[in-house]
Formats: sequence, structure tokens, C-alpha cells
Amino acid sequence: MCPPLWIAAWVLLLHGCAAGRVPQAPSTRNDIRDCSVDPPYLPPTATNTTARLAALRGTMRTHGALAYIVPSTDAHMSEYISERDARLGWLTGFTGSAGTAVVTQDKAALWTDSRYWTQAERELDCNWELQRTTSIESIGMWILKAVPAGGNVSLDPFLFSIDTWNSYSRVLHGSGRTLIPLETNLVDQAWGDQRPLPSSTEIYSLPAEFTGSSWQEKVAGIRQRMEQHARRPTAVLLSGLEETAWLFNLRGDDIPYNPVFYSYTLLTNTIISLFVEGSRLSVAARESLRSGCPGPLCVELQEYGQVSAHLRRYTQGNVTVWLGTEYTTYGLYGIIPQEKLLEENYSPVMMAKAVKNAREQEMLRAAHVRDAVAVIQYLLWLEKTVPQGQVDEFLGAQHINALRWAQDHSRGPSFQTISASGLNAALAHYSPSNGSSRTLSAGEMYLFDTGGQYLDGTTDITRTVHWGEPTPLQKEAYTRVLMGNIDLSRLVFPSHTAGRTVESFARRALWDVGLNYGHGTGHGIGNFLSVHEWPVGFQSNNVPLEAGMFTSIEPGYYRDGEFGIRIEDVVLVVEAQTEHQSGETPFLTFEMVSLVPYDRNLIDLRLLSPEQIRYLNSYYERIRAHVGPELRRQRLEEEYEWLQKSTQPFPVNGAGTAAAGTLVLASLLSVLLGGLGA
Amino acid sequence: MCPPLWIAAWVLLLHGCAAGRVPQAPSTRNDIRDCSVDPPYLPPTATNTTARLAALRGTMRTHGALAYIVPSTDAHMSEYISERDARLGWLTGFTGSAGTAVVTQDKAALWTDSRYWTQAERELDCNWELQRTTSIESIGMWILKAVPAGGNVSLDPFLFSIDTWNSYSRVLHGSGRTLIPLETNLVDQAWGDQRPLPSSTEIYSLPAEFTGSSWQEKVAGIRQRMEQHARRPTAVLLSGLEETAWLFNLRGDDIPYNPVFYSYTLLTNTIISLFVEGSRLSVAARESLRSGCPGPLCVELQEYGQVSAHLRRYTQGNVTVWLGTEYTTYGLYGIIPQEKLLEENYSPVMMAKAVKNAREQEMLRAAHVRDAVAVIQYLLWLEKTVPQGQVDEFLGAQHINALRWAQDHSRGPSFQTISASGLNAALAHYSPSNGSSRTLSAGEMYLFDTGGQYLDGTTDITRTVHWGEPTPLQKEAYTRVLMGNIDLSRLVFPSHTAGRTVESFARRALWDVGLNYGHGTGHGIGNFLSVHEWPVGFQSNNVPLEAGMFTSIEPGYYRDGEFGIRIEDVVLVVEAQTEHQSGETPFLTFEMVSLVPYDRNLIDLRLLSPEQIRYLNSYYERIRAHVGPELRRQRLEEEYEWLQKSTQPFPVNGAGTAAAGTLVLASLLSVLLGGLGA
Repeated sequence: MCPPLWIAAWVLLLHGCAAGRVPQAPSTRNDIRDCSVDPPYLPPTATNTTARLAALRGTMRTHGALAYIVPSTDAHMSEYISERDARLGWLTGFTGSAGTAVVTQDKAALWTDSRYWTQAERELDCNWELQRTTSIESIGMWILKAVPAGGNVSLDPFLFSIDTWNSYSRVLHGSGRTLIPLETNLVDQAWGDQRPLPSSTEIYSLPAEFTGSSWQEKVAGIRQRMEQHARRPTAVLLSGLEETAWLFNLRGDDIPYNPVFYSYTLLTNTIISLFVEGSRLSVAARESLRSGCPGPLCVELQEYGQVSAHLRRYTQGNVTVWLGTEYTTYGLYGIIPQEKLLEENYSPVMMAKAVKNAREQEMLRAAHVRDAVAVIQYLLWLEKTVPQGQVDEFLGAQHINALRWAQDHSRGPSFQTISASGLNAALAHYSPSNGSSRTLSAGEMYLFDTGGQYLDGTTDITRTVHWGEPTPLQKEAYTRVLMGNIDLSRLVFPSHTAGRTVESFARRALWDVGLNYGHGTGHGIGNFLSVHEWPVGFQSNNVPLEAGMFTSIEPGYYRDGEFGIRIEDVVLVVEAQTEHQSGETPFLTFEMVSLVPYDRNLIDLRLLSPEQIRYLNSYYERIRAHVGPELRRQRLEEEYEWLQKSTQPFPVNGAGTAAAGTLVLASLLSVLLGGLGA
Repeated sequence: MCPPLWIAAWVLLLHGCAAGRVPQAPSTRNDIRDCSVDPPYLPPTATNTTARLAALRGTMRTHGALAYIVPSTDAHMSEYISERDARLGWLTGFTGSAGTAVVTQDKAALWTDSRYWTQAERELDCNWELQRTTSIESIGMWILKAVPAGGNVSLDPFLFSIDTWNSYSRVLHGSGRTLIPLETNLVDQAWGDQRPLPSSTEIYSLPAEFTGSSWQEKVAGIRQRMEQHARRPTAVLLSGLEETAWLFNLRGDDIPYNPVFYSYTLLTNTIISLFVEGSRLSVAARESLRSGCPGPLCVELQEYGQVSAHLRRYTQGNVTVWLGTEYTTYGLYGIIPQEKLLEENYSPVMMAKAVKNAREQEMLRAAHVRDAVAVIQYLLWLEKTVPQGQVDEFLGAQHINALRWAQDHSRGPSFQTISASGLNAALAHYSPSNGSSRTLSAGEMYLFDTGGQYLDGTTDITRTVHWGEPTPLQKEAYTRVLMGNIDLSRLVFPSHTAGRTVESFARRALWDVGLNYGHGTGHGIGNFLSVHEWPVGFQSNNVPLEAGMFTSIEPGYYRDGEFGIRIEDVVLVVEAQTEHQSGETPFLTFEMVSLVPYDRNLIDLRLLSPEQIRYLNSYYERIRAHVGPELRRQRLEEEYEWLQKSTQPFPVNGAGTAAAGTLVLASLLSVLLGGLGA
């Protein structure tokens, strides 16, 4: 799946996943809405927010806030959020995944990035200005105009990252406006009893067969990291939902697509405090957590809402709290006295989770084999049914989801299925909806970016196909995207190389002819956790690559209003066998974990180098070796035949770079043969 | 020239120019000195620092400083410093370019990186502990042990970057020790009248034929940037010596190798204040600066020492001062109230200087043509004289310096000449000294990394040669270094790509077989200014690449105790001609500016791809076209012949990757021909 837009604006500009260039300055394009006429013209998709705004403004007056900032995140900096946390959506009507609203007594504005401009125009009513940028500087300038000097600007500090808080603070610094963190969330007050209730479904233990190690081993490992750290932290604070889920081998379903549950953890050198709605724990989960009580491996269950108070008490002592700033809100961070803080970008749990052990690797590989079966079934089904003109994007999405559900250990899709035909695929994040979905045809390219949750691993794969006659540009672009995928996948590099310093290998074949793509090149992935698992990947805020990490590799090319191409595979970082050795640690390379062939119809073999073709052929051998037996086991004979056909080795001497030298000899040969024949 | 070790520790670890891996933890190796015996054993190169330390400790007592920190930089964050600023060297005896000393009443320690450990052991006496790391955390821990709680730790804030100050401040925060900035420099007090006097040589205007634009145009350009900036700064503060020199088209010789002079500039929207020893200005320079007086293009000359007082007065008004944090000391920074600061990594002058205009490009190209003549003369001279066994590294260095001096507009070397034979070349920064210099021979490789200052441009080039029979590993490593140089040089990439995201193209051919190098891949270069001109280059703290920037490209390979290879060329960022267009700005690539052929004796053609060979051949055509006529003009006929021979095109179908496909046909052909012949 295309990497998410990350919070920091500079990452957005460099690595935004929106198709094409993300504009740096607000656009001057026309709005779909016409708020200058009376009554205003609004599309039927707009939400009337007058009453909601009035309610919020009432709570703002009570708290003396002249402006109130509402973000799109939750208290755990989650990528996906629950309905209960969709405050921005409720207040504004805008349902895009990223944006910021600011409300004063007489103004309201929403900031969002180019992926969402059209959607925002369709969903906002005339109470809202749409600001086509996401820079905090722009939000700050707007606030400075809207709020007189001496006024207070408020926000809920538990919904802002430390970085974002600092950015607002810097923008307002010295301006006479004061940034006030309000622990009461004013949107929640306005929302009142209409706000969805917290999830009450069961939180369960992963069966032992699906865990890489016991939670006790994981806790011991983290405590060892604490002891080995020069600053000797006495505790680790976990705010990211995946962190607690991973550490205790627990799962839940509070958030769509990610099997996590609302929680915090404070792990000290002697005590383990898990902040969670305890009544939701399954009997087995509770027993597992309490099995070491009393003692250092006893998990003390605390109310989810008590984390701040508990942390405040804990940090009165002679302690040092280690936390990852990327997943901690300013609200919790601010509780800890500066000298008792050990800040790193990512907590030791995030760092430990990033490197999969042998068992976790084996599970992720196994999940990808079964996942490949579902994708191959889908490709064959498309090949047979698309020509009849009865498949649209939505039906396709439903079908692949169903094929995945039929695989062992399936727990549904790992993100909203992207199924995009023709020009729709030019929007990198497009998902079809029932009723407004494009019909697939042999006349255009089709891109699907899909993934599954399985108890043993999370998957994510993108294939782009064409059943008819692709244009020369489509074929060239597809081949160059594939070359990028191959060039990065087969790269050999030193241990601890930062992903951002090698991701251009996935772009070079496109760059060579003036093409590019406007999103990141890959992201980590979990064992039945997030499909975007930080901190692994190729962006600036990712950590260096180490053996045992999984990441996607997903170059693409998008042509506005015409077509979109993306080829995505999950790969595992492994040790490389090199001719020489230098340094103390072996060099690394990638092992392909996704196992689905590419579309032969879209490959222009003449562009590939012999090395690229050899690599492709060895990948295809690998697919046959791993997926073939599984297809047979599942008695999918037609799919097995399809796979054999689709993974025929390519001729290496068809390669373009060999052409020049070969051509000379070939023509000489034909002259000679001609001579012989004559 | 190999990029310098930059100040921040993380850059040091990633990009340190030391050969091989820069260790992260202090080493436990033995010291050359033996301070455990009485009297201690010291090499004859050690300096007795007892009296100097006693003097410093006296001044420390007067100022109540329990510890005093002494850095290696000057007040302008210069890479090279004058003798007068060599405080660390005077105090410790250590003459390496990077280090930090801390002195208490009974202890003294020096921190330096692995390049300098041996040198430090040879130069320090037993008053000094040698700490084999440069992490500020380590310095901080040492201070915490040496200074009791409640004690003051002092430093001269005008010798520390903002970042470094903040790091010390963080390390001591909450520890009960207070970091006190002392404007009086205690080393200078102790040094007393032994300290070298300030330079008194003339500061002169560059002749108009050697400037890219007049200083008035440059000032107008910077003022335009100020007006266009969202924060509307009222002034720009310049601390970097190159900034002032570039802005006013002035040069001096206060610092070895860099033609700059001690100065600061405060450029406001109405007034230009140049802080400099005014009596040193040439008549022409003074006239040029005063030609617009009175008025907004009048340069007001102020005493160099008045900059702090002036800045303090200026910032009492309603002003905003724009500065680049990388070149500003904490001393000046701290004077400006936070809300009146506009901080960016680099000042607008640094940013403007980085992009050369057409005239500046032409001048830098011209300087490199003449420089190529000197290097080609040197290569031919070596070829003829080395076999006689009479050339050593030092003599070689003298000879190439002399050849450069003979070229038009020469102003001497642009850095200390690196001339290293055999195992000496494994030390990336090795420079020979008279008397301890290795003899060049046909039995080993020779690396020279040299550059010149010319009135029209600064040059920097490295070639590695072998006059005998290189080992297979030497040949493979050389070829792979060359492949890296070619791969990065011929890269096509989008405008504003960050250098650090593409520098691995220079490493891939080495990585493929498990080899690598431990330094950065390139650095900007000036028009008769610094050989390391920030902020251009391939490191993390460099700015994105734009057309008009010059950078070196210099992959290498070093084998401890055996040999060293580096191939360095200066290139210009230019627009690329691409088959397709995407986005609004054209794609970029590099134009080769250095024009000297590589050693054919060290190239294994079978490793190169046909594209690499074609690129090499077109580069050689370019050398012939540009340097050939200049050799003829200078009547260097033997060198001309040498050039023709050395730039013969390579056969493209000798390329390794084409071999497989070609071989099949070739053997078929030989069978057929055999058949015919039979």
C-alpha cells in the first residue's frame, strides 16, 4: 500500500503519496461550492455543520478560547482512527484522513493536502473556508489574523504530537497570543451523547503458534535495552497502540484494519502497568498477564484514563522515562520533567518490533504464500471475466477480499482495498465505492493495491495489468517501474544503510526518461499488526535497514486523467553473499516475500539489462517453488497452470543493453548464413 | 578533496572522511606514550604543556571556572584556521584539525576522532588524557565526574556553534553544573603576548573580469530575498568568512588556502555594515565600497570587534534578523532576542553563492581547463621520472604545486596537497612532509588529491595511478570506484533532489562485491573561494541540487596497510534532455568540469556496462575538445600526444554485461566460420 502522508510538512512535500507533485503554495482553483450566492450552492454531499459549530463555540466561550484547533489524529498518533475519534469529520463533514480545522467565534477553516481538495469541496458547507495547504505556518498566519493580541488559542494536547505542538508554539511565539493546552476536549463536549461509545469488544491473546516469542521474553528484552542504555532509564512509556499489542501478544479491533486496542503501557524495571479497559480482556489474556503475579513479570492492569495521573506520580521519583517522540502526544510528554526524559524518535519497543526474529519471518513468509494464492486466483478470474464487461472496480475489490477471506488464518483486509481502472488509478489512494465504480475493460490498465490480515502476518501487494493493447508509453512506464522495483530489490548494501539513501534506485529507470512518482518507496509491515509499520521504510524518518526487517518496495508512475501504475512487493532484509568482505558486519540485500508474477503484456524486454532479466527469472523460479505446491495443495489446478505459463523464463539475450554488441554479430551472422543459403 | 569531517557527530559517523569505519566507541588500544613510568616515556614530537596549563588554570581561578572547554574552530566556524586561532594547538600541542580539550584544576583531556589518534599520542604530553571519541555526551560525562555539583563550566561562546552549545547545555542540564559563557577567552589570556598577531595584509577587490556580478547586484539580490520572505526580515547577519568575501567581491589571505579575511556583515534593508579592520582595505576596495555613499548601497565600515555591540543596539528596534545557524556562533546568536530571529540552516548569501550564474560557471570551467593542463603535465612527468626511483611523495607534491603556479591566474594550492604512495594512500587525508616521505615506484599505486586557487575559480581533483602491474583486487577496486564515479555523474534526476538520496549511485558498484568507503561523496566548490564550499554536496546537511551548482564526486576504496584509491572530479549541475517531461521544472544531470583522463592500466573493461563505456568515451571526447587546444596553445606537444593516447575510445562491445549474449552468437559464428574454413 502506498505509504501514508506523514505528519511533518517537509515529509509531505518530499514523500507525499498523492499522485504527481504536491503543490507548495495554495492553489487558486475554483471551488465546487458557490458560497457567494444566496442561498449558497452546495453539492448534496455537503454536511450542515451550523449546529455543531454553534455547540463548539459555546464550549469555547466557557473556556475563554478565541480559537480552537482540531486535528485528525487520535491520542495514539494512529494512522487509522475509530469513529469515536473522528472529531474532525464530525465537526466539519470532511471525511478525508488528514486535515486540521481551526474555529473562532465567527470563522472556521479546514486545511488539507491536494489529495483531498475535491473531496473537501464536496463535503464542507459554507461555514468553512478550505485552505489548500497543510503548512502550520499558514495555519498560524490565519490564527494571527483571526485572533486579536492577548487572546488565547486552545487545543487538546493529547491529540498533538510533540513536534506539531512545538510548531504551533513557534508560530505564535512573541505574537501576544497564548497557546493553551486544554485537557477537556471541546469537540467531545459539543458532540455530547451523539459521540460513538468506546469499543467494548474482546481483547484477546494471540495463540502461541502465531507469536514470535512470549510476552515475558519481550519484556525481558526491553528491560535489557534499558539496562544497556547509557542514561539507564528506569521506565519505558508506550503510547502507540501497536507497541502495547506487540509487547503483550494481545489483539483487539478498536480501529479498522489494524487489530489493536486502546491502551498505554508504562514498563519500569520492576513493574509493568497496562492501561486498558480491563473488563474487555479475555479470560485467557487476563490469565496470561497475571501469571507472573506478584513479581517483576506481573502485569498490573490500570484504567486507560489513569495514564496521566499515574505518570505524574511516577515521575515525582528519581526516575528516567524513555519514550519515542513520534508516537507520544504533547499531553503525556509535558507531564514528565525535562531532566527525567530520555527522548528518542522511536521507543525501544518500536525498534525491537522492527526486526523480526526467525519465527516471525517464517510466519510472514507463510502468510505471503497463501496471500499469493488469493491474488493469483484474482488475476486468473479477472482474465476470464473482464472481457465480458461485467466487472467493475467495486465488484473486483469485493472479489479479492472474498478470496483472501477463504485462505487459512484470514482476518480480513489490512487496509481499504484500492481497485482502480484507467484514469482512476492516477489517484494513488483511490478506493471505489458501490454505485460510482468504473467498469474494468481490456481497453485500459487496472491497478489493485490490496492486502490481508492473517494471524501469522500482514500482507500488502500491488499489481497493474492490461488485458488488451497497452500504448507505447504505458508499456515503457510499466517496464521502467518494474526496473525500479528490480534495481532496488537486488541492491547489495552495507548494514545500517538508511532507506532514504537508496530509494532512488527504484526511481532511476523512470528518471532516465524524465518520469517520476510523487510518493514514498516503501514502508514496514507487521505480523498481524499494521500494514504501515513504522519505523522501517525508505523515508527520512525511517531507521537504518537491518537484517530481519520487512519493507514494501513500490515504485509507480501516474499520469493525471489517463492511467496509473504501481508495482509493490514486500521484501525481507537478509544478509548478502559478497565476493569480498569489508567491515565487521556482512552486507545486506532483499529477499522477495510477495510471490505473484508481473504482467508480461506490459513488459518491454528490450529495456531490461541482462542482470535485470536474470533477476526476474530467478524471482519467477522462487514463485514457482513456493506458490506452486500451495496451489496444488489447495487443488487449484487451473491457477497452477496459469502460474506456470506466467512464470516462463524470459530470454536473457533479448536484453536491450546487450543489443548493440549482439546486433553487429547477428547481422554478420545473417550475412554469412545468407551467403551459405545462396 | 575528501569532504571534511563535519561538526555534528552523526555526520561524522555516517560521512567521516577517515578511511574505513569510524569507530563509535572509544578504543582500548595502547598509547604510544607511557605515562605510568617515571619519568614518563614521551616521543620527541610531544610538546611540554605544563606552563601553558598552569597559566590557563590561573585565569580559570580568576573567573571561577572549574572546567574550561576549548574547541578547534574559530569565531566564523572556518574549516581552516589561522595560527592566531590555533588555541587548541597551542594549549595541547596537538596539531590535528579537529578536537576538543577540557581543562580542570587537576585534569586535562583531549577528544578527537580516529584520523588523529596516532598524531595525538605523538604530540600530547602526560598532562593530557586522550579520549578516542568526539561525542559531546562523552565530554559531558567526563565533566560531570571532574566537576562537583554547584560548579561552573565555562567556554567562549564565540567559538561554539549554536548546535554545539545546545548539546553541552543539554548534557549538563539538571546536573547542578552551570554552563557559563565567558566573553573573555581564557586561553588568549594565558597565551598572552606569545599569541600571533592578527593578519595585516591587504584586503583587495577582485578585478571585474573575475567576478560574476557586481557587489551592488549581489546586495540587491539578497535584499530582494529579504522582501520576498514571508517573515519579512529587516536584516541579514553574515558570520561565515566566505559570505562576506563573496558578497563584496573582496579577498584576503588571513587563512591558509582560503582567500578570505576576518569580517562580519550586517546587511539591513537600508544600511550595509561591514565589520573589518578597515585600514587593511586596498584603496580600490575602499573606493568601491564607498562609491554609493550616502545611500542604501553605501558600505559603512565598522571595527571588526564592534559586531556584538552593534548587533545588540540594532536588535533593540522592531527588527527581524535572518541568519544561517551553521555558520553563526552561539555568542552572536544569543544577542538576538528569540522573537527577532529568523533562523535557517544557511543564510540567503550562502544559498545565493551556491548557485553559480553563467559567468561564474564559465570562469570555473576555464580554471579547470588550465588546471587539467597542470595535472596532465604532472602525470606525464611521473610516468617518465618515477621509474628512475627519484620521486618521493613530497617532491611530487612540490612539483604539481609548481606546475599549477605556472598557469595563468594561479594563486597557489586550494588545500594541503595529498600525495600518497602505497599504504599511505589508505589514510584518506595523508599529506607527506619533507624527510618522512615515501618513494614512488612502479610497484605500487599512487594517489594524489590536489587543487588550485585561480582568480577565476577553485579546483580540486584526485587521480590514482599505477605504472606497473596492479593486483587483481587493485584493478577490480579501481574499476568499481570508476564505475561509481560514472554512475553518479551520468545520473538524470529531478530538480531539487537532495544529494544524500543519490550518493549511493557512487557506491553501488563497490557494494555489489562487499566493498565501500568511509567518507562522503562530494562537496561544493567556489570561485576563488573555498575548496569545500557549503551548502552544496551529497551529505545530510547539504541543500537540494539545483542547476548551476558545482560539486565534487569522489568515491574511493581504502585497504588499511595496503593501498588507497580515490577518483575525484568536479561536476556542474545542468538541465538534462529527457525523452518525457514531468512536473514543471526540467530534470537535471551533471556536466564534467574536471578534464583529466583516468589510468587505463587500472581499468578492467569487462566490468563496465556498454552505457558506462559510452559515457567514458564521450567524456574523453570532451577532454580532447577542451584541453587539447589549451595544451597546443601552451606549446605542450608531448603532453598533447600523451592526451591523445590516453583518451583513445574504449571498445564498447568489450563490455562485461554484453558478454553473455554476445558470446552465444560469437561461438556460433566461430563454428560457422570454422565450418567454412574446413
